[in-house]
Amino acid sequence: MKLHQHIRSSASYRVRIALALKGLPYENGIVDLLKGDQFAPAYAALNPARLVPLLEDEGTCLTQSLAIIEYLEESHPQPPLLPAGAADRAWVRQLALSIACDIHPLNNLRVLRRLKDSAGFSEEDTQAWARHWIGEGFGALEATLASSARRGAFCFGDLPGLADICLVPQMVNARRVGLELSAYPTLLAIERSCMALPAFSATHPSQWQPAA
Amino acid sequence: MKLHQHIRSSASYRVRIALALKGLPYENGIVDLLKGDQFAPAYAALNPARLVPLLEDEGTCLTQSLAIIEYLEESHPQPPLLPAGAADRAWVRQLALSIACDIHPLNNLRVLRRLKDSAGFSEEDTQAWARHWIGEGFGALEATLASSARRGAFCFGDLPGLADICLVPQMVNARRVGLELSAYPTLLAIERSCMALPAFSATHPSQWQPAA
Repeated sequence: MKLHQHIRSSASYRVRIALALKGLPYENGIVDLLKGDQFAPAYAALNPARLVPLLEDEGTCLTQSLAIIEYLEESHPQPPLLPAGAADRAWVRQLALSIACDIHPLNNLRVLRRLKDSAGFSEEDTQAWARHWIGEGFGALEATLASSARRGAFCFGDLPGLADICLVPQMVNARRVGLELSAYPTLLAIERSCMALPAFSATHPSQWQPAA
Repeated sequence: MKLHQHIRSSASYRVRIALALKGLPYENGIVDLLKGDQFAPAYAALNPARLVPLLEDEGTCLTQSLAIIEYLEESHPQPPLLPAGAADRAWVRQLALSIACDIHPLNNLRVLRRLKDSAGFSEEDTQAWARHWIGEGFGALEATLASSARRGAFCFGDLPGLADICLVPQMVNARRVGLELSAYPTLLAIERSCMALPAFSATHPSQWQPAA
């Protein structure tokens, strides 16, 4: 497998964590979004959306981090990243999607750039925009997780899974835009559980380096 | 089952289509986002994110349209909304997520409202913002689908599934903001295949009425 990714992209970090949790080896393809590598014709031919991550496996190109992780789950079931029952699986997917759909798309690089370049937002305006939407989403997540009997050391029970894989990268983004996180004690506790595992810590954007 | 929804919400329309394709009966709970029903304490207690749709089933509350549809797929497998093989399933999920993560979140009601109320966007500015992101996403989707051997009358082969369920509601949103759709002939052809089916046409926001 080959993972095309940008180190600071939180969707890329999600897939790095999933591959690490499942112990799957892979090659790296670096797509530097800040330098515009995603617009190179060779990359755009692989992914017309010109986004990361992209996973190549046995001649197939897969995009969208959550589709990639579900693919890894189906093709390499152990250790599982989703629980067994349909209602529990839906709950974990709901947490993951609340980050992937309601939070992350509103504060990724291309959106913040457009707010600055086309809508006249200052740097502080764009950071405030990002803080607003992360805060909205984290508030709902905190309420959901704090009151749930499904939660353990991780979002679901005492093993890391799909929801944790989405949460930890979003915490990185939240700090990057200066969101005060003390209002989210449950999210912070889950993050601590995750960061004690090499699958989360060694792949963290501040630590991770592609193999030479 | 009870589906809490807003008629014009495209995420709600996705779930209506999935329930109709599977032939599952359900009660309706109307949450009028324009009137602010989502902020009522009774609803916010069910869904702290104060978004729609929400599905109640056997005492469980599920949010996030794609998590709900995967739940329906697992608990009521026939007819399937995803193909059989892991790579094909990933491809269909990727198309669905490219709409649910890259397009829809940037032009839903709460975001357009914030651009107007807090960032001083005019009505025309917000429509142009929505057209930009739908156009970016549809351009990539058109390129992916037009060149794919997996495509048939529908996004994957000749049966409707998860990707079509996301595409058709997004086409409604695209017309609402005045996006010219002639640049996307493949998407238009797939939409025509879908709209020939009652599961898509009878649940369309222009047609659908909750049962009395």
